[in-house]
Amino acid sequence: MAGGTKRLPRAVREQQMLDAAVEVFSERGFHETSMDVIAQRAEISKPMLYLYYGSKDELFAACIQREGQRFAEAFTIVGDPHLAPREQLRKAIEVFLGFVAENRSSWMVLYRQAVGQQVFMGQVQSTRDRLIELTAGLLEHSTREPMPDQDFHMMAVALVGAGEAVADRVAGGEVTPDFAVDLLESLAWRGLSGKKKGE
Amino acid sequence: MAGGTKRLPRAVREQQMLDAAVEVFSERGFHETSMDVIAQRAEISKPMLYLYYGSKDELFAACIQREGQRFAEAFTIVGDPHLAPREQLRKAIEVFLGFVAENRSSWMVLYRQAVGQQVFMGQVQSTRDRLIELTAGLLEHSTREPMPDQDFHMMAVALVGAGEAVADRVAGGEVTPDFAVDLLESLAWRGLSGKKKGE
Repeated sequence: MAGGTKRLPRAVREQQMLDAAVEVFSERGFHETSMDVIAQRAEISKPMLYLYYGSKDELFAACIQREGQRFAEAFTIVGDPHLAPREQLRKAIEVFLGFVAENRSSWMVLYRQAVGQQVFMGQVQSTRDRLIELTAGLLEHSTREPMPDQDFHMMAVALVGAGEAVADRVAGGEVTPDFAVDLLESLAWRGLSGKKKGE
Repeated sequence: MAGGTKRLPRAVREQQMLDAAVEVFSERGFHETSMDVIAQRAEISKPMLYLYYGSKDELFAACIQREGQRFAEAFTIVGDPHLAPREQLRKAIEVFLGFVAENRSSWMVLYRQAVGQQVFMGQVQSTRDRLIELTAGLLEHSTREPMPDQDFHMMAVALVGAGEAVADRVAGGEVTPDFAVDLLESLAWRGLSGKKKGE
């Protein structure tokens, strides 16, 4: 090894490269990001970056996988059996929006970059499917007298869609997580509006 | 002109090429689509296709622009002043999901392909912004006693997000437009669930 190269453990170096890559991808988008800039940000050489990750596509895939996993791990605390299903749903919304607020770069990469790129869409969709399943279960367990045709799966599709749209505004700093949690919880149980005109 | 080339008016030929392109992009995705296949589908030569549209990127942009405009035009019938705001909102949801059900290729191109590609995201976002603005206005006019902190814009963000998620399931044939209209209308006014356990 040439003098001056820090001999960090491989695992530490890998995480540093991913940190840098997530930052740069979130700032510039996939297409506008070059391996040069990521190498600079990670303070390593470009050949080293290629040695570890092979190509920009592979590095991006590694970012999505790590961020998707962190996102999924954030939800493991949700399934607390001591909470009523309705409280669990509120908790799930809080965890979701809290994660987005604290990990804006993750969100930008996962949601704004990876969605729409055929190759990575599968990974995003499988995270989304887990959220929908979780939400459908909580909705079903919170409903005392379900209608015969009540489709909890499709309700959850709608609610997760609303959640993603609002989360994107949280990531953009347009709205606070607390406000967004209240909005989504109210959407789930009471609809957007209180009383309607003419009621 | 060589014998055998049909001398169609330019505008007709352009629309035929776009029809073919929208079909192929929706079936294969942007990256997997080649100009060869589009030329074959449109029954013209590849040089002719390049002559008209320059590149695959430009052809895709033309597709998004045309489909986005058709989508926007579908909404011009919504602003009927004889209808109550609440009925206008239902009408808007019907028009939205009806368009998606009848124009699945449009939807696939606009929503699944164009989203996430930085270059085209602006066009998708501006269509979405128009929908959000329309929805926010209808929600506001339908609410008799708004709360002081009621944020109709963010409510509309949530509802349009839910609408896009459900529309994608309509396009995929998982749910009928009628069912989806009822679900979204109910979401807007009453929330997903009727009675909650313990109420």
